[in-house]
Amino acid sequence: MGMNILVAHGGGPTAVINTSLQGVAEAARASGKVDKIYAARFGAEGILKGDFIDLTDVPAEVIARLQNTPASAIGSCRRKLTEADYPTVLEILKKFEINAFFYNGGNDSMDTCNKVNELAIKEGLELSVIGIPKTMDNDLEVTDHCPGFGSAARYAAVSASELALDASGLPIHVVVMELMGRNAGWVTAASAMAKRLTRCEQLTYLPEIPVDVDKMLADIETGYAKGNGLLVTVSEGICGVDGRPLADTGIVDGFGHVVPGGTAQYISDQIIHRLGLKSRAEKPGLLGRCSMPYVSPTDRREAYEVGRYAVESALRGESGQMVAIEAVRRPKYISRLFLTPLSGVANAEKKFPLEWIEDGNQIADAFFDYADPLMGEDFPQYAFLR
Amino acid sequence: MGMNILVAHGGGPTAVINTSLQGVAEAARASGKVDKIYAARFGAEGILKGDFIDLTDVPAEVIARLQNTPASAIGSCRRKLTEADYPTVLEILKKFEINAFFYNGGNDSMDTCNKVNELAIKEGLELSVIGIPKTMDNDLEVTDHCPGFGSAARYAAVSASELALDASGLPIHVVVMELMGRNAGWVTAASAMAKRLTRCEQLTYLPEIPVDVDKMLADIETGYAKGNGLLVTVSEGICGVDGRPLADTGIVDGFGHVVPGGTAQYISDQIIHRLGLKSRAEKPGLLGRCSMPYVSPTDRREAYEVGRYAVESALRGESGQMVAIEAVRRPKYISRLFLTPLSGVANAEKKFPLEWIEDGNQIADAFFDYADPLMGEDFPQYAFLR
Repeated sequence: MGMNILVAHGGGPTAVINTSLQGVAEAARASGKVDKIYAARFGAEGILKGDFIDLTDVPAEVIARLQNTPASAIGSCRRKLTEADYPTVLEILKKFEINAFFYNGGNDSMDTCNKVNELAIKEGLELSVIGIPKTMDNDLEVTDHCPGFGSAARYAAVSASELALDASGLPIHVVVMELMGRNAGWVTAASAMAKRLTRCEQLTYLPEIPVDVDKMLADIETGYAKGNGLLVTVSEGICGVDGRPLADTGIVDGFGHVVPGGTAQYISDQIIHRLGLKSRAEKPGLLGRCSMPYVSPTDRREAYEVGRYAVESALRGESGQMVAIEAVRRPKYISRLFLTPLSGVANAEKKFPLEWIEDGNQIADAFFDYADPLMGEDFPQYAFLR
Repeated sequence: MGMNILVAHGGGPTAVINTSLQGVAEAARASGKVDKIYAARFGAEGILKGDFIDLTDVPAEVIARLQNTPASAIGSCRRKLTEADYPTVLEILKKFEINAFFYNGGNDSMDTCNKVNELAIKEGLELSVIGIPKTMDNDLEVTDHCPGFGSAARYAAVSASELALDASGLPIHVVVMELMGRNAGWVTAASAMAKRLTRCEQLTYLPEIPVDVDKMLADIETGYAKGNGLLVTVSEGICGVDGRPLADTGIVDGFGHVVPGGTAQYISDQIIHRLGLKSRAEKPGLLGRCSMPYVSPTDRREAYEVGRYAVESALRGESGQMVAIEAVRRPKYISRLFLTPLSGVANAEKKFPLEWIEDGNQIADAFFDYADPLMGEDFPQYAFLR
């Protein structure tokens, strides 16, 4: 008799979370030790209802297509499990005779994993619980970086460079671009690549440093006046010196926090009305996490490997661990996977190093030393004729 | 003695306008008949000032990189030449001993071309004037389609499909996507591909049909309630039944028209406040015309060919013509270039066929019969597991 396994997605998807699912499914099949491969439909919602998709006999060519499919092919949700839910979860796992449970997500999901593992131990259930890291925000601790980040960063870097070329080739307006990352500037920092790949002026604002709007506008005026075009890239979550988001959607989330949004439009409006310049606000939004043509090949490869490694670890009898990545960057980039206790990553948050932000609106080379290999390194080379 | 040629860009750039420039430069070099290849810096502005970039000796590998470089590598502008400017233009052309002038742009640029040609004839100047078509809006008459459109359409089609997958994999909000196209729905129509490539519900609104916001909201409520996720794609320029844009930027352009913008955010706000649903507005904006990874290979090839054909036509002594494309689509797509008098395309506008809009918010298959080959046809195949 083989094992039955269950995989679930938690939180916001990425461009490569399905690639990790492919890694899980293909490793399980290749092992010859897995009877049933279940996936929870819409994450925690599916787990609580025992609403599982049976992937056991899905054709190999459909599974292979997962690497070209953004977002969650099995469905995800934003529901955070409460203490009252855990006994139900265990009951469902018993009912389906699940031997290994893989939760693919960020901090919250690792907390869930950890609690399921602790309860299983307490109840004497033979269950292997392995966390698979995923977050475009790159804010998981211990691991060098998170699958999903490299692709979101490449999206930010290359699409900002393309906007910079547009802004400098027809410099009739200041272009403001908003990127995801409510509290962490990892993805927005990558957009500063535009300054390196093009000759356009660029200012970049991360949520880690409160923004003095008057100074920002003065810097915008100076930057635009140079005549090379100006691209301003901002995180959706940047706050003013009063600590409040520059713009918000009027929505309050489940945790009582105001949901930021419309930040680029707000800045663009200020540029128009206070500086008397033309301006456009662009907000690719969710495209930053679901665009496949910008996927980092390195990120895709690692996303696959973390899924496969999770299954191999469970088959070895590991539990209560998250798959993590360690990396060396010189002389060339090499990464390796290892396991780290869930308790050390649950609810912890890796901060963007403040020393990588220079003058409040520039990103240090040290960030790109860190991020370039994660983005795949093969950046476009443009023709400059002017 | 060979010829001297001048090429200039007019209006908003596309992802492939530099590829047409590459076609011009490489054809001129290959001909062995061209002494000097000049490009006007920032379009009409550069022409009026005689501010030319000398491309004659730019290394071939830099010219080849133009096909990977979005926006205008020589610079464009939105200045429309007036009657008073034309004598200056002719003076500059004489001063630089220009024998052939290529203007790469849309309706306005073709009008400029036409007037320069007429004045040259009147003054007995030996000048060949050839228009090279370019507009993501696809609104030039006579030609089957415009270089730049296929790539903007592919961007709209594939990125809308990616957003649809995100919206259906985590269906916690209605996703509203805004696309460029102030008066013409060509590009926004392509976004309706999401309904064909995914299982997400989709509603699509073009500027050709006034929108009854109450009915739109009712359709959104019904669509979202099906539980498959809902993507709403809208042109930036859609108007209400009163004929006014649903949202505008507060900016009035040089022609006295209000500049639309923020339409997706407006609809998203209505969804939140009037339907009590969560909603997100995404606006990739200029990315829709400058994103290289979404470029249509067909569009890129044709953009190159129109540039080359323009030079070959001028060398044959043609003038007062625009390069146009004719195409057959069955049994397979084949396109061919021809010349059409500038007077027939100057200031004319090709409308989106109203019969291709069904029920006010769906796009007919006939549109995709027309547009699929222009977008390159090789569309992603996604994995569906739920």
